[in-house]
Amino acid sequence: MTRKIIIDTDPGIDDAAALAVALNDPQLDVLMLSTVAGNVNLSYTTENAKKILDFFAKDIPIAQGNRAPLLVEYEDASEIHGETGLNGYQFPVSKRVVLREHAVIAMKNKILQSAEKVTLVAIGPLTNLALLLNMYPEVKTKIAELIIMGGSTAGGNTNSAAEFNFKVDPHAAQIVLQSGVPLTIFGLNVTSRARLKLQDINQIKTFGRTGAMLYDLFSHYRGGDFAAGLMIHDLCTIVYLLQPELFTLQYTHVEVATTGPAAGTLIADLQNRYCKSANANLAVDIAAAEFADWVKAKFSELT
Amino acid sequence: MTRKIIIDTDPGIDDAAALAVALNDPQLDVLMLSTVAGNVNLSYTTENAKKILDFFAKDIPIAQGNRAPLLVEYEDASEIHGETGLNGYQFPVSKRVVLREHAVIAMKNKILQSAEKVTLVAIGPLTNLALLLNMYPEVKTKIAELIIMGGSTAGGNTNSAAEFNFKVDPHAAQIVLQSGVPLTIFGLNVTSRARLKLQDINQIKTFGRTGAMLYDLFSHYRGGDFAAGLMIHDLCTIVYLLQPELFTLQYTHVEVATTGPAAGTLIADLQNRYCKSANANLAVDIAAAEFADWVKAKFSELT
Amino acid sequence: MTRKIIIDTDPGIDDAAALAVALNDPQLDVLMLSTVAGNVNLSYTTENAKKILDFFAKDIPIAQGNRAPLLVEYEDASEIHGETGLNGYQFPVSKRVVLREHAVIAMKNKILQSAEKVTLVAIGPLTNLALLLNMYPEVKTKIAELIIMGGSTAGGNTNSAAEFNFKVDPHAAQIVLQSGVPLTIFGLNVTSRARLKLQDINQIKTFGRTGAMLYDLFSHYRGGDFAAGLMIHDLCTIVYLLQPELFTLQYTHVEVATTGPAAGTLIADLQNRYCKSANANLAVDIAAAEFADWVKAKFSELT
Amino acid sequence: MTRKIIIDTDPGIDDAAALAVALNDPQLDVLMLSTVAGNVNLSYTTENAKKILDFFAKDIPIAQGNRAPLLVEYEDASEIHGETGLNGYQFPVSKRVVLREHAVIAMKNKILQSAEKVTLVAIGPLTNLALLLNMYPEVKTKIAELIIMGGSTAGGNTNSAAEFNFKVDPHAAQIVLQSGVPLTIFGLNVTSRARLKLQDINQIKTFGRTGAMLYDLFSHYRGGDFAAGLMIHDLCTIVYLLQPELFTLQYTHVEVATTGPAAGTLIADLQNRYCKSANANLAVDIAAAEFADWVKAKFSELT
Ligand SMILES: [Ca+2]
Ligand SMILES: [Ca+2]
Ligand SMILES: [Ca+2]
Ligand SMILES: [Ca+2]
Repeated sequence: MTRKIIIDTDPGIDDAAALAVALNDPQLDVLMLSTVAGNVNLSYTTENAKKILDFFAKDIPIAQGNRAPLLVEYEDASEIHGETGLNGYQFPVSKRVVLREHAVIAMKNKILQSAEKVTLVAIGPLTNLALLLNMYPEVKTKIAELIIMGGSTAGGNTNSAAEFNFKVDPHAAQIVLQSGVPLTIFGLNVTSRARLKLQDINQIKTFGRTGAMLYDLFSHYRGGDFAAGLMIHDLCTIVYLLQPELFTLQYTHVEVATTGPAAGTLIADLQNRYCKSANANLAVDIAAAEFADWVKAKFSELT
Repeated sequence: MTRKIIIDTDPGIDDAAALAVALNDPQLDVLMLSTVAGNVNLSYTTENAKKILDFFAKDIPIAQGNRAPLLVEYEDASEIHGETGLNGYQFPVSKRVVLREHAVIAMKNKILQSAEKVTLVAIGPLTNLALLLNMYPEVKTKIAELIIMGGSTAGGNTNSAAEFNFKVDPHAAQIVLQSGVPLTIFGLNVTSRARLKLQDINQIKTFGRTGAMLYDLFSHYRGGDFAAGLMIHDLCTIVYLLQPELFTLQYTHVEVATTGPAAGTLIADLQNRYCKSANANLAVDIAAAEFADWVKAKFSELT
Repeated sequence: MTRKIIIDTDPGIDDAAALAVALNDPQLDVLMLSTVAGNVNLSYTTENAKKILDFFAKDIPIAQGNRAPLLVEYEDASEIHGETGLNGYQFPVSKRVVLREHAVIAMKNKILQSAEKVTLVAIGPLTNLALLLNMYPEVKTKIAELIIMGGSTAGGNTNSAAEFNFKVDPHAAQIVLQSGVPLTIFGLNVTSRARLKLQDINQIKTFGRTGAMLYDLFSHYRGGDFAAGLMIHDLCTIVYLLQPELFTLQYTHVEVATTGPAAGTLIADLQNRYCKSANANLAVDIAAAEFADWVKAKFSELT
Repeated sequence: MTRKIIIDTDPGIDDAAALAVALNDPQLDVLMLSTVAGNVNLSYTTENAKKILDFFAKDIPIAQGNRAPLLVEYEDASEIHGETGLNGYQFPVSKRVVLREHAVIAMKNKILQSAEKVTLVAIGPLTNLALLLNMYPEVKTKIAELIIMGGSTAGGNTNSAAEFNFKVDPHAAQIVLQSGVPLTIFGLNVTSRARLKLQDINQIKTFGRTGAMLYDLFSHYRGGDFAAGLMIHDLCTIVYLLQPELFTLQYTHVEVATTGPAAGTLIADLQNRYCKSANANLAVDIAAAEFADWVKAKFSELT
């Protein structure tokens, strides 16, 4: 049985890897993509998402979301992903047209129109998702699960405390975490162990045009290094959908600091020390070697 | 040449290990101990410090510090260290008398009276140190270095963000971090790798009365487990004084969140992304195997 | 020349008074009403707005906005306005139908479709306006002015610091204040002096069916007392549009606390002590007697 | 029966007026003065307090307190009180010697040595008092009452929200408010109505050397203007001790924001809306005319 999903994304190199798998797996029915300002600005992330859909020749609607976070000033991560977010590969300019509606409206419509519950996958800052859940609470009962790449229980990648996606829009993250929808969260504690090693990446290069494309992107990515292995954070969300047994989850209370020097920091009550009610399945472990094997096998299937 | 030091402590099992080394090394001249509420309450930490001084028959002054944090309500860690903080070993009741002055006053006096600069070692919540630096800024030029066990750049041990010593008194931590004195900080990212393994501990048991005492304490400690190794957090500060080359430090900007759900979380700008001026040497790596060897050798010398 | 306006409202008794004037003044062209959760919940505020449009037989579109604030839990003010918000008068049940779109979308469309710039009047919590300005920044250049009832420079009406509209959704207030659109703000420091006295109200009772309706509402209102005079906060925004010389404004920097015990508190740098750039015209004085006279005269014209 | 009091002060012109009354009233036994950084820096406030003691030839101990707030950077109010804090009158240089101990220690000793409970009067930032109550909780049962000038329920005098004494050290204010000692608080809502009018001040000028001194100080004070009347904030605390019936108090819950843009803002739950337990008697009204008369009469008695 296929699972209907919507992916909210800010491509971004690891987004590209996640989309490569998601768009091509028969178990996943991608209803639409939505874009958000994150790794690079909204114009770039939208163009990038269009190019990836073109690359895989997918006729899937795409909607443009928010240009900026809710309250804080936008900061990008172009020092990691390159100026355009996908600098490593020469995609043709896309003629694809985005939906007229803001991504929040488009998502709302797709969800309410779907006969089945929809799974949301959020692999950028949570601005669009926060707006969706806040403005249209009627979608909540139609959401099977919201799977997030964001946060960390083992230190951040902006400052030492906060992970990038949550730091870009901490208020959005907190709106989503307290929304009451079923949440599954992959933070840096797990995603930074979702690595491809030098030999993996060299092998991927040989996997046809998709492998070559990903190889070129990975070669320009500074989220790790070839020696220690590249961290393909966002890919965890899609792999979890297809191979959930690779991850260990803990149902726990999570929230996000919205102000002060730790803004954007995830706080998880992993030891149930503060007796707050659990609101998310938080990934706490990954079978890292099996993950890399599974991903490589998957990439080898893509043409 | 000996180094004059004052140790502010909340024994606590790892404090006991740190004190065992510090009190017996000829390179360190321990001018006084001060106690603070932390792992267990102030009455217990003071009794424990007295007992440790008795155990090693050291005629060193001891002063009692603050019974509670500056603003937040006190929470202990007796679930880790046992009700009294040193439950594992039967120390005789101590007849030792504490100084009449509050630890803050006693530290101030000791520092100002010392001909040489004094090194402060803080291995509990930073309440006393914050009061000292705030009330008596004239001591700052007499402080060679303030060496702290606290914070983390890789997740906390209370909730997933905040380390215990900083969480107990986040305002005190922030006062100390912004005080302008030379700081060296050992957070969980390093101290949780400062482990003794099962075979190490079993060996320590055979090292005479001190080894037996430490073995008994370690056997009641829940800061890790025998299989994975016990984390002797506080000991890093003393080992650093005696064997600094075991650690890698990074000079960086650090601060602490004082309010909100992330209160007590250290924020270090390790990538110099936010362009704030550096104010601390933060430990970022430890030669873990050499650390364990060095500690074992040290413990074997104690009678 | 008429001024095109959109009113975002949470009726509420003082909202009703503001709408009575706005809907009937030839200088104002009310393009639409939008409703928000505030004095009472969204269902009540929407029903109330419909009833007021019915009462004045106005064919003006009405859209329903957000059911809850962005991040904080919703608290109403039914202890001031009565359970339904307009308990004092028996309005017939309305058959009016609200627009299908969320108020944020409806406002965006109205603004972008208007040939002239539009003036927004916000007399409830700022949730809808914050969403509008955040999701659709392209409307900003089409907004002539955003006139707000909210905040205070002289103490609050929830706790002693925060005014109700800003307290209900402090994050929305801060989004609006930092949005860059031309802002004019009427806080409690001025609106609590916008009072109708006992004799005024008794006179209003005699002004035909509108006067009788307002009298009945005022009689159930606990925003002041008949002896000291009723505070008709929201009315200030509409009176300002028609008779701006009754108010003194100061162009100053304003922001809102979003977290902590002072959440929802307006902070205005009235003495330019903190050298932040001005972002709002803040009302600092009112010609209170002339205000009451003008309002009475206005009410006497309504049939 | 006389009341034993300690006054913690940052003179300051209104401090001088308060001290003039307190030092000369037979009902008050001033055990000591302590000084704090506030209106002007600690060196100035200490010199000023010495000069006032000299002026009245009082043999009362004086101790110097904290040079800076607990966490935030110190900001003075020299634009209100003049560079030295008492610029208007030429006091002779004082040869008086301050106590060797920090004010916090001196206060602690005085309180514990007193047979009777002591009343504390705090008319500057609360830094010293916070340190006292935090370091020496054993004094709490010996404190009859802590009377504070600080905060406001009707807008601030720094920005529009925060009063100066609480803004200078918001953390100290919060430590004191949550300390559990009996608190009586005079905020700007009342103290800004404690005014002396032009004719009052002109009369005071004629009251001998004390009147002439106060007149000279008032002439240099920018806390109001002669036409509208000078606000003698700090004096309320002393008048309350001697003539409590001039004030109306409400027992209520109070706290202070410590971070964010509203830092230093008092939050009082005057309507008991948030159901927190009361911890202070907060002044909510003053018999302003009687206050002025009483003060004038009092000043006329001083030689
Ligand atoms: Ca991403
Ligand atoms: Ca310790
Ligand atoms: Ca309203
Ligand atoms: Ca003062």
